[in-house]
Amino acid sequence: MPAYSTNMRLKFPILALTLEIITIILFAVFVVYDDGKHGGHGAHNNATHHEEKTEQNPLTLYPMFQDVHVMIFIGFGFLMTFLKRYGFSSVGLNLLLAAFALQWGLLVQGLWHLDEGKIKVSIFKMINADFSTATVLISFGAVLGKTSPVQLLIMTLLEITIFGINEHLVAEVLKANDVGASMIIHAFGAYFGLAVARMLYRPALRNGHENDGSVYHSDLFAMIGTVFLWMFWPSFNSAIAEPGADQLMAVTNTYFSLAACVLSAYAVSSLVEHKGKLDMVHIQNATLAGGVAVGTCADMDIGPFGAMIIGFVAGIVSTLGFKFLTPILASNLGIQDTCGVHNLHGMPGILGGIAGSSNNTVHTVHLYKRGNVLNNTVIDLSLCTGLIMKLPFWGQPPDQNCFDDSIYWEVPEEEEGEESLAHGDHSMNKAEA
Amino acid sequence: MPAYSTNMRLKFPILALTLEIITIILFAVFVVYDDGKHGGHGAHNNATHHEEKTEQNPLTLYPMFQDVHVMIFIGFGFLMTFLKRYGFSSVGLNLLLAAFALQWGLLVQGLWHLDEGKIKVSIFKMINADFSTATVLISFGAVLGKTSPVQLLIMTLLEITIFGINEHLVAEVLKANDVGASMIIHAFGAYFGLAVARMLYRPALRNGHENDGSVYHSDLFAMIGTVFLWMFWPSFNSAIAEPGADQLMAVTNTYFSLAACVLSAYAVSSLVEHKGKLDMVHIQNATLAGGVAVGTCADMDIGPFGAMIIGFVAGIVSTLGFKFLTPILASNLGIQDTCGVHNLHGMPGILGGIAGSSNNTVHTVHLYKRGNVLNNTVIDLSLCTGLIMKLPFWGQPPDQNCFDDSIYWEVPEEEEGEESLAHGDHSMNKAEA
Amino acid sequence: MPAYSTNMRLKFPILALTLEIITIILFAVFVVYDDGKHGGHGAHNNATHHEEKTEQNPLTLYPMFQDVHVMIFIGFGFLMTFLKRYGFSSVGLNLLLAAFALQWGLLVQGLWHLDEGKIKVSIFKMINADFSTATVLISFGAVLGKTSPVQLLIMTLLEITIFGINEHLVAEVLKANDVGASMIIHAFGAYFGLAVARMLYRPALRNGHENDGSVYHSDLFAMIGTVFLWMFWPSFNSAIAEPGADQLMAVTNTYFSLAACVLSAYAVSSLVEHKGKLDMVHIQNATLAGGVAVGTCADMDIGPFGAMIIGFVAGIVSTLGFKFLTPILASNLGIQDTCGVHNLHGMPGILGGIAGSSNNTVHTVHLYKRGNVLNNTVIDLSLCTGLIMKLPFWGQPPDQNCFDDSIYWEVPEEEEGEESLAHGDHSMNKAEA
Repeated sequence: MPAYSTNMRLKFPILALTLEIITIILFAVFVVYDDGKHGGHGAHNNATHHEEKTEQNPLTLYPMFQDVHVMIFIGFGFLMTFLKRYGFSSVGLNLLLAAFALQWGLLVQGLWHLDEGKIKVSIFKMINADFSTATVLISFGAVLGKTSPVQLLIMTLLEITIFGINEHLVAEVLKANDVGASMIIHAFGAYFGLAVARMLYRPALRNGHENDGSVYHSDLFAMIGTVFLWMFWPSFNSAIAEPGADQLMAVTNTYFSLAACVLSAYAVSSLVEHKGKLDMVHIQNATLAGGVAVGTCADMDIGPFGAMIIGFVAGIVSTLGFKFLTPILASNLGIQDTCGVHNLHGMPGILGGIAGSSNNTVHTVHLYKRGNVLNNTVIDLSLCTGLIMKLPFWGQPPDQNCFDDSIYWEVPEEEEGEESLAHGDHSMNKAEA
Repeated sequence: MPAYSTNMRLKFPILALTLEIITIILFAVFVVYDDGKHGGHGAHNNATHHEEKTEQNPLTLYPMFQDVHVMIFIGFGFLMTFLKRYGFSSVGLNLLLAAFALQWGLLVQGLWHLDEGKIKVSIFKMINADFSTATVLISFGAVLGKTSPVQLLIMTLLEITIFGINEHLVAEVLKANDVGASMIIHAFGAYFGLAVARMLYRPALRNGHENDGSVYHSDLFAMIGTVFLWMFWPSFNSAIAEPGADQLMAVTNTYFSLAACVLSAYAVSSLVEHKGKLDMVHIQNATLAGGVAVGTCADMDIGPFGAMIIGFVAGIVSTLGFKFLTPILASNLGIQDTCGVHNLHGMPGILGGIAGSSNNTVHTVHLYKRGNVLNNTVIDLSLCTGLIMKLPFWGQPPDQNCFDDSIYWEVPEEEEGEESLAHGDHSMNKAEA
Repeated sequence: MPAYSTNMRLKFPILALTLEIITIILFAVFVVYDDGKHGGHGAHNNATHHEEKTEQNPLTLYPMFQDVHVMIFIGFGFLMTFLKRYGFSSVGLNLLLAAFALQWGLLVQGLWHLDEGKIKVSIFKMINADFSTATVLISFGAVLGKTSPVQLLIMTLLEITIFGINEHLVAEVLKANDVGASMIIHAFGAYFGLAVARMLYRPALRNGHENDGSVYHSDLFAMIGTVFLWMFWPSFNSAIAEPGADQLMAVTNTYFSLAACVLSAYAVSSLVEHKGKLDMVHIQNATLAGGVAVGTCADMDIGPFGAMIIGFVAGIVSTLGFKFLTPILASNLGIQDTCGVHNLHGMPGILGGIAGSSNNTVHTVHLYKRGNVLNNTVIDLSLCTGLIMKLPFWGQPPDQNCFDDSIYWEVPEEEEGEESLAHGDHSMNKAEA
């Protein structure tokens, strides 16, 4: 693949500006401020009730919205900075994709629920737009380091659209409840990303890549992401719950699930690692699996100890996944999952779906039968997305430049005749020469 | 300039302690707790209404206040850590200046609106004090790396005082509305800082300085600041808006303006840079211009798409400013704007003022005529501030020690015979020898 | 001490899993969701009133809870990352200990106040659980770098239990008011930690340790902790205050105490340091002493200027403590206080207790007499905790591996034949060989 093909000078600006201009035009046609009067149905099955109750103060949900916002932009953004030379892309492209995804998500979700022909923007709708954004960022984790900004914008456009359709079908057609969205966000985002990663399989990276790893300080930057995700996950799982007792229950369940998950993730990390040492990959990710897994039943009366059991199991499953399953997926199935989203969002998301449905078996069997059809369709659409992304003119990085900011970013140069903190730039730039 | 002059041992403690003791005495005379009863006028034209409505729970605005607080202390503080050897000063002096500025700002703003001879501290007043602090931190960005802590405390004292007078005149005399404060905070802070930077012009830095740049990890620290500013800007622009629909409108407009701004800033950054690569300076700053530019009309009914157009244009203007205007300001006008505050706060602030006034043309012409007189006075006062700061006994750093923490901070030493992460200390300390 | 003893492979997982399973069982027996009906007494003397008032919306305190949560997990966690090679442990073990402590704290505090035989989890109780967690993290600071994860889990278990008893006695038996908890959290945590540090005294570290210091970027990571603690301390001191005027007073007092503290801490740091330079250790810690010291009287009518005087004095005392007292404690009393918690939490906590009690002298003398008995008992229990932790089979690190992540964590390896940001790993791993 010749070097010039990764030059973003025309492709990227044209695509980004075109998408934004189209979005602005669609906003001019469809989007208005929320006036507090609601004739239609909300994006979720409990939306209408919720919005009615908060009519008097339209900013009641604002603090929770900001918590979710921090998860999206700081949480996901910094969690992915663990790679030694991919921090600019991780936090920078996270910002780019999320900024586009939340606009596009608001449109796609809103078009199903037009009110007098318009999408009326409320804090509630902004939270839902952030949720749709989360799916893209989860999938981004699976392909991190192996895709160009152009490819990622295309993935965002398609994934948000597919998510919007899927969410509508699950909520409105299947009448399934998934307040914390274990399935419709986490499992969806993970398997979407894995399908795309499968399509973008790179045999040359089978034996790893020198830049596919962390350095000391990049692991600390990643912990900023981990801890903000961990702290604000109760807001993620409760933001759109019914106000009052249900919302408190969702906060409480998530809080304790996460706390129990930390203990089991640390324990298992030490158990499976060399000399009983803790592994930063596990700590950065598996400690969050409790938040994913408790999502679907966050507002159900499972008892605080029930939530803790879910979190406890999720921490174990997730850590074992990182240790044993990720290498198998890469070597046997050709799925190179950079951030291990299968372990943080995939398996815990399914665990959450199972836990959530175990309260209601008959309905569940019915759901699974119909859901399965949906799921197969989603995977097909994910694979198509990957196929489109694989087209050779989107500026995908060559194998040797994967996991390296310097192919799409100006990276500070090492100073002449002096070792600076940026040393290592030589190797960063070598592949461009 | 002899080396001893930068020794802060007496000057700095005496100034800091004196300022704080005077402040405490003034607080003892003037400042009391808010008792919920308001006889006077608030700091802003809509303050009275606002405070009346929130009388029942004095902490209604507290979450928004904390968002603004995070912008001031984390946002501005870390945004400026992009310099390779000036992180201690960036985040540390940011904390020092802000801690003094918020006390002094509360006094200066409060003295115009005494209630029974007292300043009654409410969350609303704390938010306004944070706003006045923002002006100082914007100006700090213009002179970053070229000033001593003593000079900066003097600038803080004078700028906050001048800001307090200017804000009062704009709000009370001109009756101008500037809820998100594009003009009275952002443009004010930027042009104040540029005027000071002009007075402190250093010909020896005409061709740059080896420390006036970033390293890989310093750019990541700066992104912490960027992302927190980006996320919480809706709170900045809506915190003092009329509660209810107006406040929601301010949140919505800022949110979409920022989202659109990200796409245009990224696109233009790639368009103007070498090989279509993204430039961290643009990403760190120009993505925020949408928040500045939408400020004045944040609570006006411009429609979400109107806000997006403002943000879209601001992202383009700001990025082009960094690329083309900053070098011209430095070489032709002798304005060395370290952080490019002209591009983030100056031009977008004026853009916001124009956008905000375009709804009301007759009133605007009137305002501009009278405002112009004010603006000239403000620039004169800014230049005087710079002149005072230029006096030779405030411990200004010599040219070769600019952008270097080690002149005012104890910086960790490199370990003997071992390369540590602090390597480069040799060069940090060489100018002191 | 042979190397294998620090292998955590069995001890740590067994202890962590056992503790979590016991906790889950106790939760199954005792803990239920809050149903909004309260028959018993709250954890604090003003709890009952408070909970009654917020019955209608159980999430009123949620934003303040999240502020406190950020202090616990980001604030304490990153504040301790200042050590050059102990960042994984600082933020990682902080997460582990806090996740366990908040569960255990909720149980221990709740068992004193059973309601129909159950602990009903509310946001209020979660805040109190976070408070109990703070004591452990303060003590963690005193022994940072010199303890194994197993030792720290044992300390957490015992300290939370002792804290729960002490808090109950102070609040219910002595009827002392300590809303911001200068004494019962900060001084308690500090002196508990110092007593444990005394028991774990290491003569070989008398002359320091090569890893017991910072590097440039580790000091910046620590500032993330400092600034988040500084910003959200008003929430810490006001979260459980009586809603309304008292809560606003607690916010106001803490806000101004912290602001004044910054000025005095910076001034004294420059005054006592070499060539008048600022010292990062002082800035990271002493700027927060105002929040500790104003705690006890945060909701008292001391006037904003009164709060500022307390903060001003606390900043001076704390900085002088770091400069002059910490070395004496280490050399003369055998107390090696890694983070200087005596200066940030110990002395300012006592200062706060004195300030708080000076309004009520007769009651105070009575309290001190009885409190003194309690305090002696607490110190004895702390020493016992240290003695238990000193048992030789908990995997305590050998002297040469203190302050070094690589003994309990997988640390990224330096790349072959290339200097990376992780260089220095050689020395990190040498003690294991």
